[in-house]
Formats: sequence, C-alpha cells, structure tokens
Amino acid sequence: MDRIDKRQHDQLREINITRNFLKHPQGSVLMEMGETKVICTAMIDDRIPPFLKGTNTGWITAEYSMIPGSTITRKVRDSSRGKVEGRSQEIQRLIGRALRSVVDLKVIGEKTIWIDCDVIQADGGTRTASITGAFVALVDAFYTLYKQSEIPYIPVKNFISAVSVGIVKGVPVLDLCYEEDFRADVDMNIVMTDNNRFVEIQGTGEENTFSMEELNTLISLATKGNREIISMQKKALGEIGELVGKKSNNMEGENQNE
Amino acid sequence: MDRIDKRQHDQLREINITRNFLKHPQGSVLMEMGETKVICTAMIDDRIPPFLKGTNTGWITAEYSMIPGSTITRKVRDSSRGKVEGRSQEIQRLIGRALRSVVDLKVIGEKTIWIDCDVIQADGGTRTASITGAFVALVDAFYTLYKQSEIPYIPVKNFISAVSVGIVKGVPVLDLCYEEDFRADVDMNIVMTDNNRFVEIQGTGEENTFSMEELNTLISLATKGNREIISMQKKALGEIGELVGKKSNNMEGENQNE
Amino acid sequence: MDRIDKRQHDQLREINITRNFLKHPQGSVLMEMGETKVICTAMIDDRIPPFLKGTNTGWITAEYSMIPGSTITRKVRDSSRGKVEGRSQEIQRLIGRALRSVVDLKVIGEKTIWIDCDVIQADGGTRTASITGAFVALVDAFYTLYKQSEIPYIPVKNFISAVSVGIVKGVPVLDLCYEEDFRADVDMNIVMTDNNRFVEIQGTGEENTFSMEELNTLISLATKGNREIISMQKKALGEIGELVGKKSNNMEGENQNE
Amino acid sequence: MDRIDKRQHDQLREINITRNFLKHPQGSVLMEMGETKVICTAMIDDRIPPFLKGTNTGWITAEYSMIPGSTITRKVRDSSRGKVEGRSQEIQRLIGRALRSVVDLKVIGEKTIWIDCDVIQADGGTRTASITGAFVALVDAFYTLYKQSEIPYIPVKNFISAVSVGIVKGVPVLDLCYEEDFRADVDMNIVMTDNNRFVEIQGTGEENTFSMEELNTLISLATKGNREIISMQKKALGEIGELVGKKSNNMEGENQNE
Amino acid sequence: MDRIDKRQHDQLREINITRNFLKHPQGSVLMEMGETKVICTAMIDDRIPPFLKGTNTGWITAEYSMIPGSTITRKVRDSSRGKVEGRSQEIQRLIGRALRSVVDLKVIGEKTIWIDCDVIQADGGTRTASITGAFVALVDAFYTLYKQSEIPYIPVKNFISAVSVGIVKGVPVLDLCYEEDFRADVDMNIVMTDNNRFVEIQGTGEENTFSMEELNTLISLATKGNREIISMQKKALGEIGELVGKKSNNMEGENQNE
Amino acid sequence: MDRIDKRQHDQLREINITRNFLKHPQGSVLMEMGETKVICTAMIDDRIPPFLKGTNTGWITAEYSMIPGSTITRKVRDSSRGKVEGRSQEIQRLIGRALRSVVDLKVIGEKTIWIDCDVIQADGGTRTASITGAFVALVDAFYTLYKQSEIPYIPVKNFISAVSVGIVKGVPVLDLCYEEDFRADVDMNIVMTDNNRFVEIQGTGEENTFSMEELNTLISLATKGNREIISMQKKALGEIGELVGKKSNNMEGENQNE
Repeated sequence: MDRIDKRQHDQLREINITRNFLKHPQGSVLMEMGETKVICTAMIDDRIPPFLKGTNTGWITAEYSMIPGSTITRKVRDSSRGKVEGRSQEIQRLIGRALRSVVDLKVIGEKTIWIDCDVIQADGGTRTASITGAFVALVDAFYTLYKQSEIPYIPVKNFISAVSVGIVKGVPVLDLCYEEDFRADVDMNIVMTDNNRFVEIQGTGEENTFSMEELNTLISLATKGNREIISMQKKALGEIGELVGKKSNNMEGENQNE
Repeated sequence: MDRIDKRQHDQLREINITRNFLKHPQGSVLMEMGETKVICTAMIDDRIPPFLKGTNTGWITAEYSMIPGSTITRKVRDSSRGKVEGRSQEIQRLIGRALRSVVDLKVIGEKTIWIDCDVIQADGGTRTASITGAFVALVDAFYTLYKQSEIPYIPVKNFISAVSVGIVKGVPVLDLCYEEDFRADVDMNIVMTDNNRFVEIQGTGEENTFSMEELNTLISLATKGNREIISMQKKALGEIGELVGKKSNNMEGENQNE
Repeated sequence: MDRIDKRQHDQLREINITRNFLKHPQGSVLMEMGETKVICTAMIDDRIPPFLKGTNTGWITAEYSMIPGSTITRKVRDSSRGKVEGRSQEIQRLIGRALRSVVDLKVIGEKTIWIDCDVIQADGGTRTASITGAFVALVDAFYTLYKQSEIPYIPVKNFISAVSVGIVKGVPVLDLCYEEDFRADVDMNIVMTDNNRFVEIQGTGEENTFSMEELNTLISLATKGNREIISMQKKALGEIGELVGKKSNNMEGENQNE
Repeated sequence: MDRIDKRQHDQLREINITRNFLKHPQGSVLMEMGETKVICTAMIDDRIPPFLKGTNTGWITAEYSMIPGSTITRKVRDSSRGKVEGRSQEIQRLIGRALRSVVDLKVIGEKTIWIDCDVIQADGGTRTASITGAFVALVDAFYTLYKQSEIPYIPVKNFISAVSVGIVKGVPVLDLCYEEDFRADVDMNIVMTDNNRFVEIQGTGEENTFSMEELNTLISLATKGNREIISMQKKALGEIGELVGKKSNNMEGENQNE
Repeated sequence: MDRIDKRQHDQLREINITRNFLKHPQGSVLMEMGETKVICTAMIDDRIPPFLKGTNTGWITAEYSMIPGSTITRKVRDSSRGKVEGRSQEIQRLIGRALRSVVDLKVIGEKTIWIDCDVIQADGGTRTASITGAFVALVDAFYTLYKQSEIPYIPVKNFISAVSVGIVKGVPVLDLCYEEDFRADVDMNIVMTDNNRFVEIQGTGEENTFSMEELNTLISLATKGNREIISMQKKALGEIGELVGKKSNNMEGENQNE
Repeated sequence: MDRIDKRQHDQLREINITRNFLKHPQGSVLMEMGETKVICTAMIDDRIPPFLKGTNTGWITAEYSMIPGSTITRKVRDSSRGKVEGRSQEIQRLIGRALRSVVDLKVIGEKTIWIDCDVIQADGGTRTASITGAFVALVDAFYTLYKQSEIPYIPVKNFISAVSVGIVKGVPVLDLCYEEDFRADVDMNIVMTDNNRFVEIQGTGEENTFSMEELNTLISLATKGNREIISMQKKALGEIGELVGKKSNNMEGENQNE
C-alpha cells in the first residue's frame, strides 16, 4: 500500500514545535504535525478545585477545542450547541490524565495549571498532537515558576508524547492523517514516556475487531513513533528539557519513574 | 496480596444475567457482577439520525447513567447539573462503539436501537458490566425483530463481553471491585469477542505508567475473564444465543468475523 | 364496567414493598404497585440549602425520574433534553412537600434528606407509588440516624401514603393502571395520613369537569385505598414502624398530629 | 380573627378586569385582584405541536412568569437562571389544562392559542388571577377569529374562574393575600365552571394536614368566590360573554357541559 | 415625506412618565413613548458582584426583556429558548453602562442597584425608552436610600435620556416608531446628558452606509429630542429632580460633569 | 502625552494581513494589528436561516471568540460557562452587520457565509481587527465562488475596515492597545468604507461623557486610520481586490455605493 502522502508505513509526518507562540501564557506552543496545527498553552491559576483545598497539592486540567475553520466542513462551536460534545470531553480528560501521570503535583502547591489545546487546523491526530505540544508548554510554564523560585525544581518525572497508529486497508501504519484515519479499520492512540512505559492505550476497532498480533505490531509502531517525537520535544526545549526528571541541578535522574 | 473479597487474582466476581427484567423494552437485562447491578435495555425506534437518512442502514446508540442511590455518596443527576458529565459521555460512546463493531447494521434497515444502561448499584466495573449486559439485551431485541420477520436473521457476528483488569498494590488482578479500582495504579477495560479478538482496549495509569510486560499480563487476565463471561452470556441466552453469527438456521458460522 | 385487570372498582393492585433494596443508601425500597416499580432511596447529606443555614433545622428534598426503558415508548432522558421536564418537576415537588408535612425537621438539625424516586417500570400511579415507597425509605433512613444516636427519636408524626383515583368511562375507580389512567375523564391523586387526614389533593379533569358528588365518591375510594396501603407499609416496617409518632419508647402517640 | 385588610373571611378582594390592555394580542387583559396584577394575553399561532399534526385539532398552551419588580425581594429571571423554575412550570401547566377543559379544540382547527400570564405585581393568588384573566383574554381571542369568520362560533362551553382558599390561624378564608398565604396552614386553589363543576382542585398542607370537614368548608368558600368572580368576568365581557356556551346565535346553551 | 403618524420630522411622540407604578421596588416607572410602554424598576440589593468585594463601591446592572404579548408576532421567551438572545444582552449592557456614567458608585457603598426594563408594548425605541424611564426609577431608588439616611446625597451627577434618530426614505427623523424603524436606512441611538454631552452613540446602517453630513444632521435631531425628554423627566421628578447634581441641599451644581 | 509604545497619537500599530492562513476555509486570514492577532475565516454553507427560505437571497453571519490563552488572565470558554457572553454576542452581531452592509446578498443565492473570528492574542482592538480581517477573508471566499462560476461577480460594493479611537488621559488617540483601552475615558469603534462613509459608529464613555468637539476629533482620527487600513487590505488582496465594486471585468466602479 502506498500512503496518501508517500510516507513509509512507519514514518512520522513533519513535526514543528514553536515555543513561546503567544505572549500571555506562561507556556505556549504551536504544535504542527504535518498539516495538523494546535495551539497548546499552559497557564497558572492560584485557585484549585474544591476537592484539593487544604491538601497542599496542585492540579492540572485540560480543555480541547477546535476553531470552526479548522475542519473541512465548518465545525459548530460548543458554545453555540450549548454543551461540550462528547468527543471533546473525552479528549480533554485524556490530555489532563496523561500530563498528571508524570507530574509530582505536591511540588507546585495549591495551584492549577490550565492546559488549553485549540486546534486551528485539523488533519488527523489532533488529540495526540495536543498531548505532545501541551507537554512542552507545561514544561515551559513550570520553568517560569522555577525561575521565579516558586518551585524548587521542575516537577516532571519523564517526557511524554503521544501518537496515533492504525490499520488502514490491512496495513498497520504510524501517525495517520485525516484521510487515513477516516478509512482506518483499527485506530489506536498511545501515550508513552521517554523510558518506554505506557501512560495510556486507547485502541478501538469501530465496525471492526483486531487480533493480538495486530495489537503488538501497532504497539511497536507507536513505540518507534513516540521515541522520535520525544527527541523532537527535547530538541525544542533545549537546556530546559534537561531539567525534566531532575530534582536539582546536581542530582541526576534518580527519581525517574519512582 | 489478599483481595478484599478473598478472590483469586484471576477470579471473576459472581455473575447473574436476568433476561426480560422489564416488560416494555424489546430486550432488557439485569446485569449483576458482584455487587454492581445495571439495568440494560434495548429498544427499537423507527427513526434514525440524519446522517443515515436514505442509506438503508440502521444505528445503535447508547446512554449510560447512574441513579443517585447507586453510589456511596449520592450521585448528583446529570439533569440537575444541566449536562451529561464527561465520564458518562465517554462510557456511553464506548458502549455504542463496542456493540456496533459486531453488528451488521445494513440488515436492520433504517432503525435505531437505543441501548440504555442504568446503574442501580455501583461497586466497580459498571462500564464493563454495561457492555456485557447490553449485548444480551441487544440480542434479545434483535430476536424480537427476527420473530416478527422484520429481519431475516440476527445480524450479530460475534459475542462480545467486557471486563476490567488492573494493577493493585503491584499485583495484576481481574475484575476490580470499587475498593480495588480506587486504589489501582493501572486500570484497563478490555472488550473482546468470543473468538479472542479485541474490540476496545482502554488502559490508563493515572498518576502512573506501566511496562510492556505488565500490559501483556493484564491482557492475558482480561482474555481469561472475557472467555468466562461470554460463556455466562451464552448460558443466559440459551438457544437464542446459538443464532448469533449465523445468517440462517441452516447456515453455520461461515460469516464469523468476515 | 369490567376493569382491564379484572379488579373490583375499589380494589388496589398487588403491593410489594422490598426494604434495603440497595446497599449504599440509608433507606432504600423497591416499591411495586402492580406492574409499576419504583426504586425509592433516602440518603443523608450534611449540607443544607442556603435559606436554612443557621436555623438548626433540616430539609427533605425529592427528585423523580423515569429510566428510558420504563415506558412503552422509550422515555427521553432529562439530561439529553437539557432540562427536567415540567411533569417531573411537579411530581418531585409533590413528593418533597408530602413527606415534609409529617416530619419535624427541627429534630434532625442541619441535614438534608435526599429522596430519589427512580421509576424502572411504569404502569400508572408512579407518583403515588413514589410517595408510598419514599415514606418507608425515609423512616429507614431516620432509623439509621436514631441507631447512631444522632437523633433522639424518629421525627415522623404520622404514616402517609398516596393513591390515585379517577373516573373511567363514568365509573369511579381506585388505583388506576396506565391503560385506565390514559382513558380517565377525571384523575385525582390523594395523599393521606394514618389518621385519615389529607396531605395533598390534586384533582384534574383535563378535557373535562366533575361534580361535588363525584368528588366525594373519589375521596371515599382514596380513603379506603390509603388505609390499606398504610397497613402494608406498617407490615413492611415491622417494629421500626411502631416508632413512628412516638417521641421515645415509653411515650405513646401523644404527639400525633400536633 | 381579623383579616389583615379588614375583609370578611368569605370576602374577595376588589376585582378589576381591563380588556384590550395591549394593542398587539388578539386578547389581552389586565387582571387585578386586590394588589395582585397580571397581564394576560391570548395570541393565535398557525403552527401546532407535532403530536397534533394532521388531526384537525387545535391546542392551547400557557406560559407564566413574574417580572423581577413584581415581588418584595427582586425575582431572578428564569432566563438568567437558564431554566424555568418548578413552580412556574407547575402553574403554567395548570393554566393550560384548566382552559382546555372548557374549549372544543376541534372547532379551531390546527391553530395554537398561546396564553401568557405575566405578573407585574404579586400579592398572593397570582395563579388563580392568571386563570381568571386568561379566560377573558381567550374569549376575546376567539371572538376575533369569530368576527373574521375563521370559526363558526366561540368554542367555549363554560365560563371558568379560579380562586384560592386556605386556613389561616385556624380560620378558613377566601382569596388569600400574600401575607395570609405566607402564614396559611392549608392552601388550596380551586378552578370551577359557571355551572358549579370542578375543573381542578389542588390542596396542600405543607407542614400540615387537614380534615374532611375542613376540606368541605374550603370547597364551599371557593364555590362562593368563583360564583362572584365569574359574574365579574361576565360583566367585563358584556355581549361577547353571552356567546360562551352557544354554538350559534339562535341556539341556546344546549351544549353546556356536554 | 409625511410621517406615518403625521408628526414633524423633528417631533417626539407623546411622552408619559408614571412614577411609583409598582408597590414593591424602591423606584418604578411606567415609561410611555407613544405606543411603546416599558415598566422600569430599580431595586436595591445588599450583595455586589465578586469583583467589587472590599472596594466600598456599588454597582448598577440592568436587565431588559419583552413580554410575549408586547410584539405583533408573539415574542418567544428567553427562558423557553434557554438563553438571553444577543439583542437583549446588547440592550441591557447599554442601559447599565449609560446609567453608570452619571452615578458616583462610591457614594452608595457595597450595594447593587438592579434595573429591570420589561417592555409590555413595543412600537419602536424600546431601548431608548428603557434608558429614559430607568433613569427616573433610579433617582427614585436613590431618594429612598437618601430619606433613610443611607446615603448623604443623591449620587447622580447629571440627567440622562436617550432617543432614536434615523434616516427613513432619505429623510432624517427623530424618535422612530416601529414602522419607521423597520424601513430605516440608518438607525442611531443617542444617550445624552442635560449639559449636552454624549454618553453613548450607536449608529448603524444595516444594508447601508451614511455620510458625515447625515451624521451631523442626526446628532442635531437627537440633541433637540433629548433636551425635550429631559425636561419631561424633570417635570415628572419635581423636587426630587432638583437634588440631581447636588452634593447637599446648599451646594449647587458644582459637581456637574466633574 | 507619550503613548505606551511611542506611537504618534494618530499612528496605527503595525499591520500584517496573511491570506490563506488555513487550508480548509474558502477564505482565511491571520490579521495582526500590533500584538493583537485574530484568525478570520469565511466558509460557505449551502443552508440558510429559515427566514430566508425561498427568497433567493443569501446571508452572512459571524461568530467571535477568544481562545483561553489569548488574554493575560486565562479567558474562560463560553462552552464551559454554558453560554456566549454578552460582549461576544455584541461583537459578533457587529461584525455580521458591518459586512452585510456592503454585500449584495441577492447575488449569492440561498447560501450562508459563516465568518469566524478567533482571537489568538488580544492586545486591544480585537473587534475592529476582526472586521478588517474578516472583510479580506470574505472577499477571498467570494473569489472562490466566482472562480467556480457560482456567482457572476464579487458582490461586494465597497471595502470596509474598522478602527478604534479613544480619549486617554485627555488626549484623543488612534488604534488603542489594551493598556490604553483599559485607561480610556472614551472609547469608540468606527467602521468605514473606502469612500469615507460610515457603516457603524459605537462610542461610549463608561464612567464618562464626551462633547461634540471631542466627537469630531475622534471621527477625524478614525477616518485617517481607516483610510490607511483599507490601503493595507487592498495591497494584501492585490488583483482580487480590484474586483470589489465591479459587476464585471469591463464595467468600472459605477455601482459604488448605489
């Protein structure tokens, strides 16, 4: 099978991670994965949800939305429909959960980090691009707190990134564009850390089912993809990225995955 | 580790599937999985969603809700909050998607099958119990159509069931009760067919991550669990269950997983 | 006129009151009145509505809902419609008002008792069955508080129950099933105490009117019906029921209807 | 007991019925009952609800609202709260039901009559004043259709009016003002026809109960009150009122209460 | 061009300002501008919006609504539509802003003045009539506070009124009725003070544009109109009106427009 | 007075108009006005609002929103609040009205052009930047229809642009940034055509009033500003811009402002 855009079955689309894309948020990234473009921001709020009051623990929450012009047929706004649609809710819950899995929320105290992923152009994989970009914005926001001496170190244990894999016309492929996603028999989103551990696996065969063998192939593809994406995140973050997983400048990595 | 209710790590809770639990729906089941109790109904509606008008294809859609008295602390109704909460939306989308994966919707024509899963008592695993019970109610509803000669055969290709697995205090276990679910480091819901294929895998390590090895162990546990649950479904459905996967009485199984 | 189900015009349907139907609520009842089945729960909440803050007085509030599978044509959820429909609001206000009329709310202090009536099968008279069942669940919830020494006695002055009466094809009948209710010219719901006093009378002749004489006949029927229903409630509650109307074990009934 | 405003226990407040109060609606009335003031309008709409399509039958529906300045403490708008509150829904359902009970909806064909009752000043009895005033506006709207030869006669079988009665400090009284209503032990609203038949009885003893004897006294008071109110309605409508209950000018009353 | 109602192009409709129209609000006015009738009320609330807590400053907020019977075709209620429509929001924001421009909110302390403008009959210019009437109700409400010695003086610096102007069939006219408004090429609402300063100018040529010269003509017309309207407000308020713009009885006007 | 960013009082901020910013919409523009950045898209929809059915006339409607990361303090989404806030509604109504004033909607037939203005970075003047950018996107969308021969010419009679003016610390200035807007005593938004006619004037002195002389100065500033902005629009559109105001390639401008 030839892929629509001539890629190899295990080849990612071109990735661009533009940091400091907006001037107001503590962290902001334009995440481009092929034609998919998402503005990911991280903003710090001194209020926390009621269930955390008095626990000296922070929170990370995420919202996901698509602007109307991001899709082929105009996307109706959630605010016009009067409610956030199920798909968006699912995605924003996923983003928040994924980021929280590698952050030590006790370190930031009673603060909320708001993650916003606003898709400005959609071509498949918007949720995984959101996670990948939001991770970078989150590290930048923590770095802001760190520079202001509000936190002793960047409380992020590991890098995480996300990628989609799927089976299109019988062939397992990495990083599906919209056209492929639309035709896929099996569709899976996998969030992983830089030490090859899983954060989330969400695989579905709408109108279809898949075998153990297919599952293993897809996981291998995703592992390869996430490894490459994380190296792009590291490159984008430069020296700041080196602070991830370290409790201080002279401690080295001993708290990985504790 | 001893489990709270003395079960083996790979042992299911007691399962009861009571068919024809309510008199109005075409299919209705009281699904009990330990202390978790869900009323699953399947009702046939002659209207279909707009995007299917004129396609001669049917639809299956699901709704999931918990009555206020089903939980330890009273569950606030979605109708009081003015919207369906994210978790419920996620679950009902999962239920609908899972059931559609094994149904040939062209056979039923322009009809909608409404699946409703109303949890009356919650003790962990309500989403997986919902899928398992809803499958049985769905077959019963199709059987009603079949008896009325509205469809030529039961358009269900395979049995599906669902079960949760997770890692609790380091130990992978099958079919978590609420207490275990609450403490789990990793939580996974797996929907499978009776020929060991996957319909959905949703695994998450909120506040945590998991390795490839752990993933494989969890999948093995789920495979064992689903095999046992499907045998309970078959027992509950009796002769009607034997019509699943057959296009007519004298054709045998050749359309499995086509 | 013969009634659809062969009952005498002044005969109730078969009544079953199953206490402790669910494990989480302090009081829970499966109330069956013929084919009508309602899960009634009473749950205690330490918060009270703003208008009672600082008054040292409690509150009883009720919610009423029907699961989609409870009716012949699938009942659309309030949460899907985005609001509680007028009929449900009317019923839940009635349930709360009726229960509050026989409870001394000062005794429970600043607590809210949440009453939930979830109809799982509807065949006429769901609102009256809800009141009858909710009363039993409420007494059970108070008994829980009493056993925990949180209240000095069960603060319920009288038993109450409710029943529908109506005029069907010119004949006044007791306890209408759905088929009768649908055809009734006059429809009345009457809530009464065990000392024959009225708590609520709601009579309507949609598309019709009724005379003083007819009103009196209907009230007589309802009085007979409620007397029988209350004896079923007493039987179901056993010894606990004997605590109703008594301020302590050795005081007897002197506070009835004070 | 002396009443707050020196009335006899069976005395109505001063009644003013101002017809043609607004210029746009087909019927419009300023209904004053003491200090309670309600603008009641009846407007004709050529659309009908879906369930009546093709039945050649019309519909009457009512909405009830209070302007924020109508009450002592500013009444929050339903539109600000995002939903119609339970009390308003209950009242508007009552108004619609009461009016439909004396109208032959087949005569008007597939039209909806919208009744709107907007309380501009509230001093007790707003729902009964609404029914009384809305009846007059409705007759005026029908008269408009009749003059335009769209209907052969005024399809109203009987006059109806409504009044509140209650027990205040042990004394049964007619037509409660807000101060009395607030203190009442028993509160009842009764809608009656001009031939002494009941349309609706809604009696409640929130925090209280009442006896058969009290019920009968209250009904007598309401009967007297409604008789007087209907004579005011007749006076206000003049010759148009004489068309009520007549199928044509030369037929006389033979269709009363058929 | 002859105007529909024979007025001169620079002639206002008949104005009636009825103070103390309702008994509960601290200020209430029936504002009539030709056939347009608006009930304007001002009510004092001891709570303030969160952003003013601790500032010792008050707030004025406005709501605007039309009753269903106010328009030719029945106006659907905002509460039925589930949200306040854009036009109403725009108008109520304008009313609040206009009133706040001439009030010293520090004088009233942490109180909110709720302005409600409920249109009971609409014939063009409802928003400008609302501002004009609301101003009078507001002064009355402040006078109530002043009499109760809760404020040292009426904290209103200037009179304001509002009027519409527009270009109808090429002719600039003052105070458009509905028929003219509907046909206008340019439509402008101007709020002014009694010392000829502007508070708001909102001019629009939907489907059209207008020149500098036309703008100047319209502003002249509005200036004339507002001067006359303010003299009507002064007449209606009598001696109370003389307190506007004075910090005490023996200080004279020195704080105008400070 | 020195301006915050050293501009002259009558100097615009730097303007960038990036056309074809997104790939899906028929017209899309990144509009930058200093630090204010808005994505403006125009998308064609074959459906029209009910009130235009059968009129052979099209419609232009606009929506405006700010992403959460666009502001200093995170902007709460309308979808989270469950409704579009008043300010957004006002702005989107303004955008739609302004664009419709220069378009001949009959030419496009029964189509809706959806204009979406999504602010990704806010620094004052977002509504005027939205209008300016949306105009360019609209012309591009029409050009798409024109190239596809769906319309005979670009049905836009004139260029329009918008700019804010205001009085800051007593000095009238052009094109306010956020800091200036926040401190302004008078704030005015003016939409104009390329032949110096007004489309909208919205001037307000919240907490303040302004004189006729000040009004005239502000209008002069806005006229200068809009002239410069329109020349930027023309430069951005190049040859396509020359089709504006022409009914065919060989007709020249005779229909300007007809």
